[in-house]
Amino acid sequence: MKTRAAVAFEAKKPLEIVEVDLEGPKAGEVLVEIKATGICHTDAYTLDGFDSEGIFPSILGHEGAGIIREIGAGVTSVKPGDHVIPLYTPECRQCKSCLSQKTNLCTAIRATQGKGVMPDGTSRFSHKGKPIYHYMGCSTFSNFTVLPEIAVAKIREDAPFDKSCYIGCGVTTGVGAVVNTAKVTPGSNVVVFGLGGIGLNVIQGAKMAGADKIIGVDINDSKEEWGRRFGMTDFVNPKKLTGDIVPHLVTLTDGGADYTFDCTGNTTVMRQALEACHRGWGTSIIIGVAEAGKEIATRPFQLVTGRNWRGTAFGGARGRTDVPKIVDWYMNGKIQIDPMITHTLKLEDINRGFDLMHEGKSIRSVVVF
Amino acid sequence: MKTRAAVAFEAKKPLEIVEVDLEGPKAGEVLVEIKATGICHTDAYTLDGFDSEGIFPSILGHEGAGIIREIGAGVTSVKPGDHVIPLYTPECRQCKSCLSQKTNLCTAIRATQGKGVMPDGTSRFSHKGKPIYHYMGCSTFSNFTVLPEIAVAKIREDAPFDKSCYIGCGVTTGVGAVVNTAKVTPGSNVVVFGLGGIGLNVIQGAKMAGADKIIGVDINDSKEEWGRRFGMTDFVNPKKLTGDIVPHLVTLTDGGADYTFDCTGNTTVMRQALEACHRGWGTSIIIGVAEAGKEIATRPFQLVTGRNWRGTAFGGARGRTDVPKIVDWYMNGKIQIDPMITHTLKLEDINRGFDLMHEGKSIRSVVVF
Repeated sequence: MKTRAAVAFEAKKPLEIVEVDLEGPKAGEVLVEIKATGICHTDAYTLDGFDSEGIFPSILGHEGAGIIREIGAGVTSVKPGDHVIPLYTPECRQCKSCLSQKTNLCTAIRATQGKGVMPDGTSRFSHKGKPIYHYMGCSTFSNFTVLPEIAVAKIREDAPFDKSCYIGCGVTTGVGAVVNTAKVTPGSNVVVFGLGGIGLNVIQGAKMAGADKIIGVDINDSKEEWGRRFGMTDFVNPKKLTGDIVPHLVTLTDGGADYTFDCTGNTTVMRQALEACHRGWGTSIIIGVAEAGKEIATRPFQLVTGRNWRGTAFGGARGRTDVPKIVDWYMNGKIQIDPMITHTLKLEDINRGFDLMHEGKSIRSVVVF
Repeated sequence: MKTRAAVAFEAKKPLEIVEVDLEGPKAGEVLVEIKATGICHTDAYTLDGFDSEGIFPSILGHEGAGIIREIGAGVTSVKPGDHVIPLYTPECRQCKSCLSQKTNLCTAIRATQGKGVMPDGTSRFSHKGKPIYHYMGCSTFSNFTVLPEIAVAKIREDAPFDKSCYIGCGVTTGVGAVVNTAKVTPGSNVVVFGLGGIGLNVIQGAKMAGADKIIGVDINDSKEEWGRRFGMTDFVNPKKLTGDIVPHLVTLTDGGADYTFDCTGNTTVMRQALEACHRGWGTSIIIGVAEAGKEIATRPFQLVTGRNWRGTAFGGARGRTDVPKIVDWYMNGKIQIDPMITHTLKLEDINRGFDLMHEGKSIRSVVVF
């Protein structure tokens, strides 16, 4: 079949809207009509050439929502008409990782996904006879895409696509980091570094989890209003402090935070986030993706005296199990998404979505098909 | 009163056996007759001048066992005749840390302990009219010492002092890191870096906790026999590998260890210990004390993909609560101590104990009074 898609023919060039060829789903695969997709920093990271493992030409996008239109042989968990969110972290429920019940990092299709192909080693997309690669197993910048059955979460049908697509990455990453990875408990003190979309979702996750003090840290004062809208209780702009940020936060939290979250990707901030944790039990969670080659460091004494350094991917969420729950939380008003969708664009304007992000003018831009 | 003690008059000099003056216990304090004390690397670290906060003249030693001989006003939890182990990590059961139930790092007397004095700000020891400072709140290299009531664990009276003293630091640090901090579960795969006394205690803790594979790593082949004696199932000498240690361990553990323990104090090894952990859930525990100024580092990707970096002090043990249990484990044969006590010395020979340690000839030397 043919489908309209925004193709990344090469790094550092705008996406091109073209019609590409799409093969139907093979065994264990499904065809999804994407109804809406968010534009995430990770798409930009790849498009801007920072990801040394980026593959071109490819169809980017990994934060979508849509409807199953066709299923391949052997597919049993979803049927045509089902509403789904594509999962860049699948959930096979059979690999060592899934069965461990200790991680969401399913390894069933990791090798092929990283190479931009489906589990059989080939791509479903092509343009003028040449293969176009998949991206993060999703390629939601295409009106139609093919995914493994284990890489779609079935969601309720009353959830609006142009909002629920954000649950495909940003919302789940932030809220899930709080709920699944850190397991923040009521009464906790939390510090969130970086108040972009992920940081705001961490804030609303912490609020939902009953945290007492939720301190947001950002070098941009305009983020204060955003943070407070989602439950932030205190705002700190490190550039306006006379002293260091760590002792300031330790004082604000009466000895250090119970949980800190790095949503900046800056390794210096990651260290501050760890060291702002309470001696004895404070846990720091790294969410942000750092620049290639950058390393985190600290004195081992920070860990020996009881701080925990951890990380999270896709908010520790098992996609097929947890994503539908987060959709419920949104539909039931436990978390908000609508105010975070600052821009809704047509596919033709997708490059503007990237510009808005680079200019810091959007929290989240969503493309609707 | 007068008591015989090994005094560290200054750094980098042998201890001197002298008679010192000891004031009796003040309110909330107890007088303990030390019957036996281990010589730990931390004593040597201070004596050798590596601890920038080391205070001299002082009476070192923090791994003892003895008998309460006198109690100060208001002491209710112990009485003369009780057998006790001094605690360099006290347990007041009233400070924020103790009440959190999330850490053993009681802060009740931290400030004064770090300054070498009792909670009232003064020392009980003096020599020729000049104060001699306490060390780690214990000073077990003295036949008699004074301790706060919250810094002694009452233990059963049938435990031999010359073995149970080792529970005052090394045994609890190693076994406790497994049981209290990592909470190793049956069937786990464990890697232990560094097979000195702490490493051997980690090994026997892992065995007691039901670990499947217990891999010991040491650059000294003679440690293999020691490790196997306490439950080690596999031995790796990194110097004899053709490739890197991390991928070797990942292969040995079918994807990485569930738990790794650094017992070396070497920050390069600490990184290897983290990176040898299983993706998704592996936890690395830093036990070793690193050289001043040294830092640990890794790529944040290691944490984002689910590895946990943690540390432990005094094995995460709440001294008054957990130390008596470990004494029981020893007396019931669940853990071994006797074979680890390689040398038993008189106080006069204490400097030989330090020499044996520096020469790598002892697992643990114990001084008996």
